[in-house]
Amino acid sequence: MSPWADLSRSELTVLDSVFWCGGLSRDAVAQRAAFSKTRVNATVAGLLAQGLLEEAGLQVSSGGRRPETLRLNHGLGVLLAADLGATGLEVAVLTPDLRVLASHGEAADVRRGPGLLLSRVRALMAELLAQCGRKPRDVIAIGIGVPGPVDFETGQLVNPPLMPEWDSFSIRDDLRADYSAPVFVDNDVNLMAMGELWRLQRSLQNFLVIKIGTGIGCGIVCHGEVYRGANGSAGDVGHICVDPHGPRCTCGNLGCVEAMAAGPAIAQQATDAALNGESPMLAAVLGERGVITPQDVAQASRAGDAASNAIIQRAGTLIGQMLASIVNFFNPSHVFIGGGVTRIGPLFLASLRQSIYHRSLALSTRHLDIQYTPLGEQGGVIGAGVLAMHETIKARGVIAS
Amino acid sequence: MSPWADLSRSELTVLDSVFWCGGLSRDAVAQRAAFSKTRVNATVAGLLAQGLLEEAGLQVSSGGRRPETLRLNHGLGVLLAADLGATGLEVAVLTPDLRVLASHGEAADVRRGPGLLLSRVRALMAELLAQCGRKPRDVIAIGIGVPGPVDFETGQLVNPPLMPEWDSFSIRDDLRADYSAPVFVDNDVNLMAMGELWRLQRSLQNFLVIKIGTGIGCGIVCHGEVYRGANGSAGDVGHICVDPHGPRCTCGNLGCVEAMAAGPAIAQQATDAALNGESPMLAAVLGERGVITPQDVAQASRAGDAASNAIIQRAGTLIGQMLASIVNFFNPSHVFIGGGVTRIGPLFLASLRQSIYHRSLALSTRHLDIQYTPLGEQGGVIGAGVLAMHETIKARGVIAS
Repeated sequence: MSPWADLSRSELTVLDSVFWCGGLSRDAVAQRAAFSKTRVNATVAGLLAQGLLEEAGLQVSSGGRRPETLRLNHGLGVLLAADLGATGLEVAVLTPDLRVLASHGEAADVRRGPGLLLSRVRALMAELLAQCGRKPRDVIAIGIGVPGPVDFETGQLVNPPLMPEWDSFSIRDDLRADYSAPVFVDNDVNLMAMGELWRLQRSLQNFLVIKIGTGIGCGIVCHGEVYRGANGSAGDVGHICVDPHGPRCTCGNLGCVEAMAAGPAIAQQATDAALNGESPMLAAVLGERGVITPQDVAQASRAGDAASNAIIQRAGTLIGQMLASIVNFFNPSHVFIGGGVTRIGPLFLASLRQSIYHRSLALSTRHLDIQYTPLGEQGGVIGAGVLAMHETIKARGVIAS
Repeated sequence: MSPWADLSRSELTVLDSVFWCGGLSRDAVAQRAAFSKTRVNATVAGLLAQGLLEEAGLQVSSGGRRPETLRLNHGLGVLLAADLGATGLEVAVLTPDLRVLASHGEAADVRRGPGLLLSRVRALMAELLAQCGRKPRDVIAIGIGVPGPVDFETGQLVNPPLMPEWDSFSIRDDLRADYSAPVFVDNDVNLMAMGELWRLQRSLQNFLVIKIGTGIGCGIVCHGEVYRGANGSAGDVGHICVDPHGPRCTCGNLGCVEAMAAGPAIAQQATDAALNGESPMLAAVLGERGVITPQDVAQASRAGDAASNAIIQRAGTLIGQMLASIVNFFNPSHVFIGGGVTRIGPLFLASLRQSIYHRSLALSTRHLDIQYTPLGEQGGVIGAGVLAMHETIKARGVIAS
C-alpha cells in the first residue's frame, strides 16, 4: 500500500508546512499550522512512523534542548523534473525536499516536435536516475515545464505559438511508458513562480516572475498561490502591444513586446547594426560566425559597443513599458526577472526599472522591488520539482490553508 | 453581550455560506460547507437560538417535505452603505441579507473635500435610518466606497488623484461621531466587484469589473476573492498608456486611457465637435446649456449624429485596447462593464469588445464573456453592504474556506 494513502487533515497540513519550508522544527510547525504542541507531537509521531517525515540534523536552538529538524523522508524516493525551453532543456533528479541530486542541460529545439524531444528527455531521465543509483519505481512524481499555455487539468498544451506540433499532445501518456508515477505539466514560467514561492517559504503573497528568452512570459502569484487564469493562459504578456505602429508579430498584430524586445528581436537588431556599419564589433562577430546571439550583444556591450548598448536599453525600456501596465493593474510587491536573455548587462535591468517607475503610479511603485530571479537558471527544474511534490501531497486530501 | 461573540468555526462557516448565498436550505448548507447533515442541524440550531439566523418562507422542494430557507436574522439590525463617486453619492440602508430598505442618490463633487461631503453623507444616513424606523444603535456595520486607492487596513485614502484633500483623512473617525458600529472603507470599484461576487454566490473564481466614469478603474476577483494588491492600488488601470503620442494626462504621462476615453475626455471631444461645426446637434446642446455631458453624446448618437458615434466608438476602442493587455495578463472568465459613462449606446460595448477580441490571444478570449454589470447602478451600495457584512462575520474568527 502507498504510504500516501489515508492521511488525516492534520497530517496533510503538517506535511505541507514542512514541505514548503524545506524542513521545520516541531515548534515552527505548531506556529505555522496554528496547532497546539500536543497536536503537532501526535501528528508528527504518526508521520515519522509511516515513513513520510524523518528527523535530520540539529537546528540552532534559541535556548533549551536542541529541536530536531523535520523533513520529508528521503527514503520516499526521488522527483524527476524537466524544464523544456524554446531552445534548450534541463532534466534533474531531486530529493523530496528539492535538493538536486543530478542534473543535465543541453541545447534543443522544441519545434522539432514532441516525439524526438521527449524521447531525449526520457533517455536523460533514465541516465540521471541510474547515476543516482535509483530505479524508475523509486520515482514519486514527475514535473515538466513547457514554453506554452497548458490546460493544467489535462496536462496538455493548448495552441502553443512557439511549438504548434505539441498542440493537444499528451506528455503524460508519453512518460507513462517508463514510469507509473504521476506526471504534472505546467507552463515554464508558472514553474519558475512555483520555485520562487517555495524558496520564499510562501512568505510573499503577490508577486510576478518574468521570463525573457525566445518569448516573454509572466508567472503570477496571487493570494499566495500560482494563478493560472480561467483557461490556463494567464501571464501571456508577450503579445501586449507597446507600439501600435511597431513591426508585425507572428501572432498577426502590430507592436507586440515579444516581437520588439525578446531574444530574436535583439539578435535581429544586432544583425542590422552589423550590416549597416553601426557596429564594427558586431560586424566582426557576424563575419566570423555568420550569426549573432543576444549573448554576443551582451559581450559587445560590456566592451563598450554603443550600438549594443542602445539595443539593450531599448529592449529594457519596451519590456518595462509593458510591465508598467501590469504593475498598475496588479500592484505586486516584487517583480523577479529571469530567463536566457535577462543577464545581458546592467543596462537592461536599469532601463527596465526606469521605464516602470516612470509609467506606473507612485502608490504601486513606492515599495516595489524589481530584481533578478534569485533561483536563476535552476528555477525551472526546481519549480518542476515543487509542482510534482506539492500536487502529490495535495492529491491526498484537503489541506487547511 | 454581542450576539457575534465566541462563535465556533462551524458556526462561522455556516453563517458565511448562508450570507454569500443570500439564504440557503439546510441541505444546501451541508453541500456547500461539506458538513454532515447532523453537524449542519446542530450548528443551525445553535445559530437560530442565538438569533443570528432565522427561518424565512418556504423553498420549492425537489420532493419530500419542504425545506425552510435560512437567512441572516433581520432582527440583528441593518447595514449602512455609501458609495461616493467623483460626481455623485448614493446612501442606503440594507438588511443583513442585502435587501435595500431605503436609498437616496444625488449629485456631489468629491473635490469639495471630506468635511462637507461626509457631513452630507451622515445627514442622509440619519434621515434614511429614521425613514426605516431604525436608531443608530441598530446599525451592525457601515461600508463606504470612495473613488481612489485605499489602504484597506487603516481605511484611509492614499494619494487619491481625483480627491487630493482626502489624502490620509480618516472616514472611520468621522463616522464614529454618530455610530459605534465598525466602518469599512474600500475603493468604489472593489465594492462593485464585491457586489457582483455576492450576486454570483461566489460561483465565478476569476473575473474583472471595470468602472468608467470620471476615471477608469478595475475591480479584480482572483481565486474567488477581491484582490487589492500589495498596497491596495491593484486595478488602477486608468493610467495605462494606450498611445505614447497621446495627450498629456493629469498624472503627467502621455496617452493614459483615462485622459483619452473617460467621461471628461468624451465631453471635451463632443465640445470640440460642437465648436468646429462637425456636429450641429451637439452645437445646439452647447448653445442651449453651455456644457456637454457624456449623456448628451449618448442621446445625439441615438438620434444618428455621426460625430457622436465616432466619439463613442473611439472611446470603446481605446478602453478595449487597454483591456486587451489586461485580458492577456489575467485571463479572466468574465469582464463586467459598469459606471456612469458605460451606457452611452450599443456602439460603445461593441467597439470595446471588438478591440479586445482583436488584440488578445485566442486562448484568452475563446470563452471570455464581456457584458454590462448585472447589478447596474446599485452595484456600489450593495457592494458596500456586502463588504460591511462580510468583514463583520470574518472579524469573529477564522472561516474555513
